[in-house]
Amino acid sequence: MTTTTRTSAPRRLTAKGEATRARIVEAASGLVFAHGVTRTGVEDVQREAGVSASQLYHYFGDKQTLMRAVIAHQTEAVLAAQQPELDALDTFEALGRWRDRLVTLQRSRHCAGGCPIGSIAAEIADDDPEARADLVAGFEQWEAPLRSGLATMRDRGVLRDDADPDRLALALLAALQGGLLLTQTRRTTLPLETALDAMIELIGSYAV
Amino acid sequence: MTTTTRTSAPRRLTAKGEATRARIVEAASGLVFAHGVTRTGVEDVQREAGVSASQLYHYFGDKQTLMRAVIAHQTEAVLAAQQPELDALDTFEALGRWRDRLVTLQRSRHCAGGCPIGSIAAEIADDDPEARADLVAGFEQWEAPLRSGLATMRDRGVLRDDADPDRLALALLAALQGGLLLTQTRRTTLPLETALDAMIELIGSYAV
Repeated sequence: MTTTTRTSAPRRLTAKGEATRARIVEAASGLVFAHGVTRTGVEDVQREAGVSASQLYHYFGDKQTLMRAVIAHQTEAVLAAQQPELDALDTFEALGRWRDRLVTLQRSRHCAGGCPIGSIAAEIADDDPEARADLVAGFEQWEAPLRSGLATMRDRGVLRDDADPDRLALALLAALQGGLLLTQTRRTTLPLETALDAMIELIGSYAV
Repeated sequence: MTTTTRTSAPRRLTAKGEATRARIVEAASGLVFAHGVTRTGVEDVQREAGVSASQLYHYFGDKQTLMRAVIAHQTEAVLAAQQPELDALDTFEALGRWRDRLVTLQRSRHCAGGCPIGSIAAEIADDDPEARADLVAGFEQWEAPLRSGLATMRDRGVLRDDADPDRLALALLAALQGGLLLTQTRRTTLPLETALDAMIELIGSYAV
């Protein structure tokens, strides 16, 4: 996401400037998570972050630039919330702990909000090509460790040689996204649990 | 969806009234599919449907009522687009044809739009409890034939007794939703194909 971050912060900022910028992105991310991109007005962000219009303009020339910073921020937050498991998904135990972590997180949110980046994708992927490219990159950052963990399992002989880490990782990410959307809609973690368990069961069918 | 339809059309309408009402819902559904709920203004719907503000008000007292009619309409459209397979998903051949139909449909849409009801869910499920209830009902109408087809396969001895149609149907719907979202974001049907194929492979692992 280096490119994305650069786009929205081309200047070198002072420590105070960095803090103000971070406060704006944090406030905007919270509002977008709760209400979506379209219903998050620039004035709402100003109020929530406690900054003036000119301050906000100084850091983010327009709403689109701010939203790209939100996507970068939410991608980092989503990945961080899945640690330490996400970066070492190379055993069935780790997959199980990762699954439990995701379910616990949705439960703690009372199943609201869905996926912080999936929801943005559903809302603006068709309308904003630059945001869509950032979302593609964000999902790729998510899929890469899934792929890598499964490849390690195959290389260590935990999974058979005909297990395809690329395909299984993509299917796992899709199951996760669909599970989050249905969990948000139905206000129960059952869809997320069922979707992840099904995909982990499929991965298990490749166990040696 | 009878309840939902009643909510938005409590009066008995003349044939002409029905046609006008249908034209409004059709126009609103197209706009929501392209731009989302929030960015679809009542004035846009008036213009697109070629009706006056008072006509629109006559059929739908407020935007929320109109949006509930859109959810009902899009649910029917989504289910109709999956026929004839959806109502008889009781063989692996039918599952394969259904999968191909979904992929072809997304390809014909150039992967844009995502799921017509999933996208609405991602956008407004948290903010509008009545719409959320309609979306829950819509997803249930979708999941029921998946469940029923899988139950038939189990009852006929095509699937083993330990195959759980409830669980597999929910996981299949989640994979489909996640596959649609990633297909919309990445502008390729690969995520949808991979997600559906993975779930059908898992179902296949229960074949007798």
